[in-house]
Amino acid sequence: MQEIHALLPRHLIQRHQYVANATSAAAMNRTKLGDFKLGMLVVFDDPMTVDNHLLSPHVARAQGFYFYDMKTTYNAWIAYTLIFNSTEHKGTINIMGADMMDEETRDISVVGGTGDFFMARGIATLSTDAFQGADYFRLKMDIKLYECY
Amino acid sequence: MQEIHALLPRHLIQRHQYVANATSAAAMNRTKLGDFKLGMLVVFDDPMTVDNHLLSPHVARAQGFYFYDMKTTYNAWIAYTLIFNSTEHKGTINIMGADMMDEETRDISVVGGTGDFFMARGIATLSTDAFQGADYFRLKMDIKLYECY
Amino acid sequence: MQEIHALLPRHLIQRHQYVANATSAAAMNRTKLGDFKLGMLVVFDDPMTVDNHLLSPHVARAQGFYFYDMKTTYNAWIAYTLIFNSTEHKGTINIMGADMMDEETRDISVVGGTGDFFMARGIATLSTDAFQGADYFRLKMDIKLYECY
Repeated sequence: MQEIHALLPRHLIQRHQYVANATSAAAMNRTKLGDFKLGMLVVFDDPMTVDNHLLSPHVARAQGFYFYDMKTTYNAWIAYTLIFNSTEHKGTINIMGADMMDEETRDISVVGGTGDFFMARGIATLSTDAFQGADYFRLKMDIKLYECY
Repeated sequence: MQEIHALLPRHLIQRHQYVANATSAAAMNRTKLGDFKLGMLVVFDDPMTVDNHLLSPHVARAQGFYFYDMKTTYNAWIAYTLIFNSTEHKGTINIMGADMMDEETRDISVVGGTGDFFMARGIATLSTDAFQGADYFRLKMDIKLYECY
Repeated sequence: MQEIHALLPRHLIQRHQYVANATSAAAMNRTKLGDFKLGMLVVFDDPMTVDNHLLSPHVARAQGFYFYDMKTTYNAWIAYTLIFNSTEHKGTINIMGADMMDEETRDISVVGGTGDFFMARGIATLSTDAFQGADYFRLKMDIKLYECY
């Protein structure tokens, strides 16, 4: 078993202005359905560091999307790829699942990998490392790969 | 091998007003490209029951999204997570694939799981249990997990 | 190990007018954030042939979506299903990952399969076979399945 512990700092929502459905109609829907951004879909391309210092070196990028899917609380569905391109690791890890943001930790699935992570499978345990409203949050990921070659 | 038989009732489309691209422009595109909602993307968070009675207890939630992707018939691509949180089962199952709604049954992939369904893989066989226009439909899912720990 | 070599011709973007976020607001965002279509989400249903001749017989369809996710170059995240329905092959292959279009080849994950490709896992190596601006491109896919039953 191979373990990777990493922090994924999600950016200010201003840096997420490229929200896929940032249209007035969708915004209307969101308002009508409550305060939890239901239906908002966000495309991201975020640096990952191994600790929570803003200036730490980036060990990977996380590229993918999430959308909020509940009317009663913040809850998201997420799918993304971790892209490693350093002397230490080259390759990708593909991840998807439901991010029940109310839970202190929640598990999603590592469904595949390439390069150094060829055919990886496993679990990514998410927890919220920092949260300032919905404008900025950092997500902590503990990744455990149970199938590697 | 572990089998789960469950019904996923999809809600009235009115309860899907949080459609991600419910914008006038996309609606225009849909109209221009025919009658099969091509391009419409729907985010859902639906209760699952083990039979098709509306008042049956919910055994899980299904959270994810689908979009229609054909000009000539109703056809969708879908990715979602089943979330179990009962005394019987705790954990999630992650599923994705093409939902060729014209076929009586169609198989999509169980690509991962967490909790009680740790590292699950398998097949979800979908069939349409009830269909009233596009406004309401229930989807029957037969899930077979071939890899469990 | 089972190998499938196939070409996925992506269509003219005019045939992609069913772009999920083809709204004026999203277009504004794209412009503001540079020239690489960041945030644009495309739903596709494309024929696949085994060579790059336009009139070759279709061996499968590719149904899914991709979106552009970088401000500095063309880079996409993609998830799709290959649907085989011929005398040779019946079944589906489910694929997801980051498509770093600047790289000559890039690997993404085969995360599941059904029918003839029951429980498949493996790697799909993508390369750009033809590229005429962003209006038309063909994607070459070399698919290697390492787990089959």
